[in-house]
Amino acid sequence: MNHGMFITFEGPEGAGKTTVLAMLQEYLEEQGFQVLLTREPGGIPIAEQIREVILSTSNTEMDPRTEALLYAAARRQHLVEKVIPALEKGSMVLCDRFIDSSLAYQGYARGLGIDEVSTINEFAIEGLWPDATFYFDIEPEEGLRRISSNSGREVNRLDSENAAFHDKVKEGYMQLIDRYQGRFHIIHAEKELPLVFEEVKAKLLDIINR
Amino acid sequence: MNHGMFITFEGPEGAGKTTVLAMLQEYLEEQGFQVLLTREPGGIPIAEQIREVILSTSNTEMDPRTEALLYAAARRQHLVEKVIPALEKGSMVLCDRFIDSSLAYQGYARGLGIDEVSTINEFAIEGLWPDATFYFDIEPEEGLRRISSNSGREVNRLDSENAAFHDKVKEGYMQLIDRYQGRFHIIHAEKELPLVFEEVKAKLLDIINR
Repeated sequence: MNHGMFITFEGPEGAGKTTVLAMLQEYLEEQGFQVLLTREPGGIPIAEQIREVILSTSNTEMDPRTEALLYAAARRQHLVEKVIPALEKGSMVLCDRFIDSSLAYQGYARGLGIDEVSTINEFAIEGLWPDATFYFDIEPEEGLRRISSNSGREVNRLDSENAAFHDKVKEGYMQLIDRYQGRFHIIHAEKELPLVFEEVKAKLLDIINR
Repeated sequence: MNHGMFITFEGPEGAGKTTVLAMLQEYLEEQGFQVLLTREPGGIPIAEQIREVILSTSNTEMDPRTEALLYAAARRQHLVEKVIPALEKGSMVLCDRFIDSSLAYQGYARGLGIDEVSTINEFAIEGLWPDATFYFDIEPEEGLRRISSNSGREVNRLDSENAAFHDKVKEGYMQLIDRYQGRFHIIHAEKELPLVFEEVKAKLLDIINR
């Protein structure tokens, strides 16, 4: 069976992932790759319904463990219905946020514990860790500044959490990068986006060709 | 702090739990206990929304692991918003189905593995195992017969699964009873319901008074 590659992209809000991923998709397709660019819940009806429960502004009393379980549930369904079929067709799957977002946000920043949140996410992914993960490294404050200066980008509940929270998210990612050194690749994302794209492209081609 | 007791009730559909629990609540309140009779999702809005996703008949493609994570999420929210506050007030909490239903249905009968489903549910309950669990022992076929002869009782998706599945659920419960011998108490539920009630009442008073 011709198996594709599963590449995930992580980092703070406003780091430029969305723009760079669109450029990367276009580039890879020009090179003849079959590409699936996705992010959870990714148009999968069950995963979309779960995300609606998570993001509903009336759900202010949601327990952090409930939220972590819901993210894991949406992750599972998106993986089974969208990511795995694409990988089995030999596609390059580019996924904007995956398991590491839950580990950094819920596990570390919300204090549930990276190991605790890992157990429920390992149940969800059933061994399907990404082949590589690109971390867009940018100061959280710079990311938030980019979001607020970009009027076309809707600010959601996570964006509007306070700065201390976003600093904790970054600390969480730093722990993950240390823990999973072979899988993580750090991208210097404070540059102009075309330069960020070039860095991602070069590192991804290294990975594909190694 | 005056802590209550957390008692759960398990067994196949149609075993008489609903009727017996109503009788038990009335009896315990007459004896002066504060009683909370509940079952997930128990009117908790977030848990109700999660249950709607699970039971939606259009969601025929739901992956079993997604379903197990959603049950764990609804369990968590119901526990935090309803069960724990009642226990902290010193109430006797009677819960119609809890963690063991997931272990028997998803873990064993659907083949995900009791240990696997335990990990996500242990994340959800955070150590709050029931003080005692009553298993209503009845042949699954007899339970289904009771449901179909009771026109006032709506048959849901789980009820209408085939008989082989319900036999597997029972096998799953038998493994749990073996694993958690101190917590489980077996009730002979094929008798007339007033006699079933008397058996539960006697065993529960033993537990309360020991």
